[in-house]
Amino acid sequence: MPLNRVGYLGPQGTFSEEAALVYKKNTSRVLYEYSTIGAVIEAVSTGKIEEGLVPLENRLEGGVGATLDCLAGCEGIFIKEEMLYPISLCLMAEHKVRLEQINALLSHPHALGQCSEFVKTHLAGVECIPAESTGAAARNLVGQTGFAAIAPRRAAELFNLHLLREGIEDSKENATRFVIISRLDHPPTGNDKTSLVLTIPDQPGSLYRVLGCFARRRINLTRIESRPSRRIIGDWLFFIDCEGHRSDAHKDELWKEIAGEVTYFKLLGSYPRREEKAEVY
Amino acid sequence: MPLNRVGYLGPQGTFSEEAALVYKKNTSRVLYEYSTIGAVIEAVSTGKIEEGLVPLENRLEGGVGATLDCLAGCEGIFIKEEMLYPISLCLMAEHKVRLEQINALLSHPHALGQCSEFVKTHLAGVECIPAESTGAAARNLVGQTGFAAIAPRRAAELFNLHLLREGIEDSKENATRFVIISRLDHPPTGNDKTSLVLTIPDQPGSLYRVLGCFARRRINLTRIESRPSRRIIGDWLFFIDCEGHRSDAHKDELWKEIAGEVTYFKLLGSYPRREEKAEVY
Repeated sequence: MPLNRVGYLGPQGTFSEEAALVYKKNTSRVLYEYSTIGAVIEAVSTGKIEEGLVPLENRLEGGVGATLDCLAGCEGIFIKEEMLYPISLCLMAEHKVRLEQINALLSHPHALGQCSEFVKTHLAGVECIPAESTGAAARNLVGQTGFAAIAPRRAAELFNLHLLREGIEDSKENATRFVIISRLDHPPTGNDKTSLVLTIPDQPGSLYRVLGCFARRRINLTRIESRPSRRIIGDWLFFIDCEGHRSDAHKDELWKEIAGEVTYFKLLGSYPRREEKAEVY
Repeated sequence: MPLNRVGYLGPQGTFSEEAALVYKKNTSRVLYEYSTIGAVIEAVSTGKIEEGLVPLENRLEGGVGATLDCLAGCEGIFIKEEMLYPISLCLMAEHKVRLEQINALLSHPHALGQCSEFVKTHLAGVECIPAESTGAAARNLVGQTGFAAIAPRRAAELFNLHLLREGIEDSKENATRFVIISRLDHPPTGNDKTSLVLTIPDQPGSLYRVLGCFARRRINLTRIESRPSRRIIGDWLFFIDCEGHRSDAHKDELWKEIAGEVTYFKLLGSYPRREEKAEVY
């Protein structure tokens, strides 16, 4: 059986680990923890591991800057799969306590923001302390009386914590889109998506002309997101997802036409379209 | 003299306060501190204060989600000014120490990211602790031996700290665009910009048709940024800045044409175009 080493962003007890565990389930994949998204992507590009699972965008918060920057800047890696992972947050503490006994609440700022209704209603006045990750917040509870953390269910299991409440997120629709990166993308399946990144000249109508290349062929864009380029200040990167596989009939003409309108253009890969949410860990 | 109360996002010792102090300088403006961007904008919309100064986007990090969400969701407020404020970060500690004596480094995660080269070179292996704001990081230094913070110069002045190094940011080009919001936008000056927000139907070519409204009139877009809508999951908000004032000749036709192509559309205001950076505090 071929080796299948999958890198993910640690620490344990985060949604990245939960999504990696769901991806690994019932396969021969072996998980490797890395401390940054850049390190995951570098390990894939240099061949230390076969695949990396990284967060690309959150439905409420938008794109994950570190992943987008790495995808735009790193050569020889492609997106080969996508996975829509539901974001379900839990309140946990070292011991079984009542909510009134909680004085301080630890979590990643995004997770605190995603539970703002619950916190306002049930934990008004409690001090909120930002942590580097939901996993770090849960780990830091050990030995802290009066402290609670907001983290995924997996964190309670890992650090032997008590689940005080489950599903405390404001929106039940929230999910993070993870992508699996590899040195090759996915062969066509008949129901695919293609991701690309480009920069445009600073002229009236330049983005309009790029979008025209898709519109004339009636190719739907499923996402367009802009982000400042870290290489050239004032330049913007546009991340575009479109329907279809990059090797579909007549797609070569499309890529050539786009390349003629832009200042930079890179295909990030084609992969099967997955709209439904993955199972929760 | 009319009252001119200006709200800004606290705490003191952040770039928001520095920018507010520069905006206030040599005027009769009075500053009021608020704890969230939403609270600043609400105070303007309900008439408690005349103006609010809020961060809209950072050149390296991109849009400020809380401001964009409030601008899209709140009625009766407009952008009346923009201000490009340079981001210059300093390393500070309670006492004058050598860099080798620093064991822990506090700052907002964005500020830590913006000084990554300096930290890698001069503070390798030092524990980085995330704080809610650069101001909170500086305030928390008091009484902490071996701790340092990355914050704006103003924070050292406020909390009586020693400046160990100045200008430690990776990019000297970095700046944050602040906007002044009010219940009325700015009258035409001849060199203006207009900001708007819209959502588009989920159909091939819908963004293309919106951009065509501008391109046919040769109106340059100075910025387009997409962000997930918090109201309808899966929907995207597009924030567009274009050249010119919203009341310019023939602009009414443009707004009508756009309104016919979109599912939601709101003019966020017109204001004088300011490309040059403001003075530093």
